Amino acid sequence: MTDDIRFEIAHLARVELHTPDPDGTLWFFQELLGMYETGREGRSVYLRGYEDPYVWSLKVTEGPVPRLGHAALRTSSPEALSRRVEAIRRAGLPGRWTDGDLGYGPAYEFTGPDGHEFRLLWEAEKYRAPAELESKILTRPSKRPLRGIPVKRLDHLNLMAAEVTPTKVFLEQRLGLRTRERVVDGETEIGAWLSSNLLGHELAIMRDNLGAHGRLHHVAFYYGCQQHNLDAAEMFRERDVTIEAGPDRHGITQGAFLYVFEPGGNRIELFGDAGILELEPDWETRTWSMSDIDTGMAIGGTKLPWESYFTYGTPPAALVPSA
Amino acid sequence: MTDDIRFEIAHLARVELHTPDPDGTLWFFQELLGMYETGREGRSVYLRGYEDPYVWSLKVTEGPVPRLGHAALRTSSPEALSRRVEAIRRAGLPGRWTDGDLGYGPAYEFTGPDGHEFRLLWEAEKYRAPAELESKILTRPSKRPLRGIPVKRLDHLNLMAAEVTPTKVFLEQRLGLRTRERVVDGETEIGAWLSSNLLGHELAIMRDNLGAHGRLHHVAFYYGCQQHNLDAAEMFRERDVTIEAGPDRHGITQGAFLYVFEPGGNRIELFGDAGILELEPDWETRTWSMSDIDTGMAIGGTKLPWESYFTYGTPPAALVPSA
Amino acid sequence: MTDDIRFEIAHLARVELHTPDPDGTLWFFQELLGMYETGREGRSVYLRGYEDPYVWSLKVTEGPVPRLGHAALRTSSPEALSRRVEAIRRAGLPGRWTDGDLGYGPAYEFTGPDGHEFRLLWEAEKYRAPAELESKILTRPSKRPLRGIPVKRLDHLNLMAAEVTPTKVFLEQRLGLRTRERVVDGETEIGAWLSSNLLGHELAIMRDNLGAHGRLHHVAFYYGCQQHNLDAAEMFRERDVTIEAGPDRHGITQGAFLYVFEPGGNRIELFGDAGILELEPDWETRTWSMSDIDTGMAIGGTKLPWESYFTYGTPPAALVPSA
Amino acid sequence: MTDDIRFEIAHLARVELHTPDPDGTLWFFQELLGMYETGREGRSVYLRGYEDPYVWSLKVTEGPVPRLGHAALRTSSPEALSRRVEAIRRAGLPGRWTDGDLGYGPAYEFTGPDGHEFRLLWEAEKYRAPAELESKILTRPSKRPLRGIPVKRLDHLNLMAAEVTPTKVFLEQRLGLRTRERVVDGETEIGAWLSSNLLGHELAIMRDNLGAHGRLHHVAFYYGCQQHNLDAAEMFRERDVTIEAGPDRHGITQGAFLYVFEPGGNRIELFGDAGILELEPDWETRTWSMSDIDTGMAIGGTKLPWESYFTYGTPPAALVPSA
Repeated sequence: MTDDIRFEIAHLARVELHTPDPDGTLWFFQELLGMYETGREGRSVYLRGYEDPYVWSLKVTEGPVPRLGHAALRTSSPEALSRRVEAIRRAGLPGRWTDGDLGYGPAYEFTGPDGHEFRLLWEAEKYRAPAELESKILTRPSKRPLRGIPVKRLDHLNLMAAEVTPTKVFLEQRLGLRTRERVVDGETEIGAWLSSNLLGHELAIMRDNLGAHGRLHHVAFYYGCQQHNLDAAEMFRERDVTIEAGPDRHGITQGAFLYVFEPGGNRIELFGDAGILELEPDWETRTWSMSDIDTGMAIGGTKLPWESYFTYGTPPAALVPSA
Repeated sequence: MTDDIRFEIAHLARVELHTPDPDGTLWFFQELLGMYETGREGRSVYLRGYEDPYVWSLKVTEGPVPRLGHAALRTSSPEALSRRVEAIRRAGLPGRWTDGDLGYGPAYEFTGPDGHEFRLLWEAEKYRAPAELESKILTRPSKRPLRGIPVKRLDHLNLMAAEVTPTKVFLEQRLGLRTRERVVDGETEIGAWLSSNLLGHELAIMRDNLGAHGRLHHVAFYYGCQQHNLDAAEMFRERDVTIEAGPDRHGITQGAFLYVFEPGGNRIELFGDAGILELEPDWETRTWSMSDIDTGMAIGGTKLPWESYFTYGTPPAALVPSA
Repeated sequence: MTDDIRFEIAHLARVELHTPDPDGTLWFFQELLGMYETGREGRSVYLRGYEDPYVWSLKVTEGPVPRLGHAALRTSSPEALSRRVEAIRRAGLPGRWTDGDLGYGPAYEFTGPDGHEFRLLWEAEKYRAPAELESKILTRPSKRPLRGIPVKRLDHLNLMAAEVTPTKVFLEQRLGLRTRERVVDGETEIGAWLSSNLLGHELAIMRDNLGAHGRLHHVAFYYGCQQHNLDAAEMFRERDVTIEAGPDRHGITQGAFLYVFEPGGNRIELFGDAGILELEPDWETRTWSMSDIDTGMAIGGTKLPWESYFTYGTPPAALVPSA
Repeated sequence: MTDDIRFEIAHLARVELHTPDPDGTLWFFQELLGMYETGREGRSVYLRGYEDPYVWSLKVTEGPVPRLGHAALRTSSPEALSRRVEAIRRAGLPGRWTDGDLGYGPAYEFTGPDGHEFRLLWEAEKYRAPAELESKILTRPSKRPLRGIPVKRLDHLNLMAAEVTPTKVFLEQRLGLRTRERVVDGETEIGAWLSSNLLGHELAIMRDNLGAHGRLHHVAFYYGCQQHNLDAAEMFRERDVTIEAGPDRHGITQGAFLYVFEPGGNRIELFGDAGILELEPDWETRTWSMSDIDTGMAIGGTKLPWESYFTYGTPPAALVPSA
């Protein structure tokens, strides 16, 4: 009510990834992560986890380089969509209305402060399973599949930005997201984790140490159980999928992580359990500094590798503008 | 914004339990569930789990019979509190403003349609740990204790009501909670699970099969990991705490449950992981009927025992008015 | 050395099950439990879990009624095999040498005191995976498959007997197994759990409350992780496989159990973790009595159902001789 | 029987650690790992995990430097003890009979090929809990304590040796242990994992890259559940216990590991679940080479740190003879 914008965005609804190796990428998401295919169109294949609420949460599109296509946030109401579009326009960011995509209505597409492609939308068709995939568990839109170690749903998105603060401020001021945690190096913000709901993060931004713009750090999918990260690590090891780090738990968001590279080159996180759920309406942003960042990075013994975790993103830095 | 009341309530902040055996009850919550004591006043002891955000989430009060003292919901803002109080008054329910309790500001206390005592409040002091209890994990207000199998925080509350629908409608219409799932027996609603946020439920109502008013079914505390329910079962077995049912998982809310009776007689649930998180802003209520309720009750082999689960509540039915 | 027979038997190597519904039974073991098919011959299909050391651990044979075909124990050496055969003969039990089966050498087949079919053997071919199934984990004979919730290997066998003691004494005195735990009802032994190694049991015997001879209670397969029992319960629920009891943990053997019926009618246990490992060479048999058997049956809240767990076995009692 | 020495040793029964910080070391084992104190004598304190079968499995002795005091193996029978002592004597190793220690009978003490102190014994008193510590689970000698994340029992011992092969050959030929897995670098054995029973290892030997003699790499305690390693990592992080590596799983032995340093300086492993259990009586030693050792070291993303895991042992190398 009034000008309270905390509840305008409901959640991250879908992500599009580009891949130069669509067969490998689809094998990864379908055979290893048990995602269901729900459509094909042109060079794109639409996928969903067995608890994703809509027709798809992941669009895999063939393209010359691995990268984020776009990420779409769903608003809390049609009115919230109008208000947020107006706020984005007032911010002077380029954008325009586009027709819907499979199972989704019209979306306002715009480019974020660091060059990432976003969509904002309200209309989203709920997934209805065919009889053979209906689950007896009524809150589950489809049966847990019998393939791989299946993910439940899309969880969150982590973006690299040449500078963290502008994107963070945009998400806070225009979309109403709240910064749950951040990392500072002296005066400089080098990471921020934001959400529009109880989750510890739905959108995170980490400084791109190569100074590039608009790159993807990772997309995360949700298991709901940390043991499944352990099971998945074994699966990836046996199937020659490169494990970058984990299973372990970040101090930041208390997120149980496992990072791997899908065959197309994008970094994917398997997200174990819910991590911290932030129930307080007046959550106070936690700030990590360089002196306590070890715990922020990992609660267990993991050392996140500088020569990949802190510099690798998609697309390769050489292919995009840099700061 | 207008008249959208979905976001008026933030979450369930605290619960008070009465117990005729305060020593036993405190041993249960402190030694077995690892809760911290944060205050004493008169016949009451204040407790919190290591991730509860405020000064206390559980008040244990000595009294002649086990029962719910009250449950308090925190609003999303001070304005939301005023609006909700007005809405309750318009509903004609008895209520009044009361001074704050330890660590909390003024609360509007009122009696729900079935006789349960509620509080609505905004002011809540964030818990600040003394140095020796500060955690290196910044989203954790205090260290995980080294006692028992410690719970993180209060999770949800399940009430028995002579009739389910009036309380459900009140929570929906006056407080803006959404009914996530419900159970019907023919035309009669016999259970409803509501929340004001992503959680599968924060307040549930089950029909009191003895027709009594205002009784408590259970209070649930959160582990965040289903394995801890398995560990806790072993602890309870070895310490002669009666296990009623579980560890198993309900189909309803996908809640990983373990039900026990604390020494004072109140039923307590240990809640394993987050269960279903309902991200969609336009969640559609799922309705279970008698034909599919087996899965609703338990995904594993548990048969919830009629001669306790469906009739036992606190206080004993003989001590309260009935329908 | 001398007459120490504790180490004569190495372990339970394989089991044969008869099923009237071979398609259903194979779907269960292959699609849900992820077992690999390693051969077919006549009306039999040979299966193994991904860590079973030999060519097969389970032979599924079409037959008019569900039942145990046979169970085979492997000795510690060829000499131990000769000695045990001699001991069995001296016991006066009927038996004879038979040619080998797929991947196994000659076996001495004999009928146990209650009518169960056993084999004793030494020669067993180690399973060698084709290149595409080789695991990078050298102690794992084949990759963890990407189907279902895959079991690692055969774990143990539980037999029903009209009287427990004769079979127990036979296994102790002729085969050198040790009784790890037993249950008595007054003077009568109604259950015994035996092993030849560290395991809490490899062969168990429970009284057949219908007085029938030679029936099977269950065959158990090993996960190595209790969480997988929880995952499996969900899979069985969604796939309409009847769950009899669990997931929970027996006090007896500390065995993490989940009991289901495969489509052919045999009871199958999914065995979570290792349970108690009995390292002491002079282990003292633990005896449960009726007064403490609740904990023996289940550490959590499970009540094992009399009208199935304590009376149902395969084949149906009407089809076999009874005491 | 004849000259079959595979079954002469039953298991690793106890270990003694020296520590320059007895208060810190006892805090670690008692408050964090939940071990029970069962005796004190001179500068030593005796401890046991809640499922250790004897009066103690760990003796903590104050001393100037952290180190292994001794490790004791229990034989399968008194006769096996005589035979093994005779075999050790024939090997020309120095040794002598000593009186018993608390709860144990006479032991033959000797120095292994690389300078480690061993004991061989038969007489071991079974632990009998006082009434208040008796467990309702009959295979559990005492209740799971309510402190820390309690370990069940001693699991295994990992020794550093200037050369691996002599110690390995000694354990094989004189004590009958079997080499389950080994690592070779070209022609040189740099690691060997041996056991006398189903366990993937009870005694391991790794090359001391500093060329020192008789050092300890780590002592491991058993949880029986990989989730508990994850829980323990959090506990150690919050309590400022240095985590060296893990939680993760070695390919070697499939051992779920978490390595930390107790305050006295000795490396301690928390061992999650049972890992591979080697049931075959004719187990074939698996040999890892440098080309596949990544999987051997860790199945997940852990890189074991050269500058500690492969060089740190106790006591410091400068204090002991080197090759």
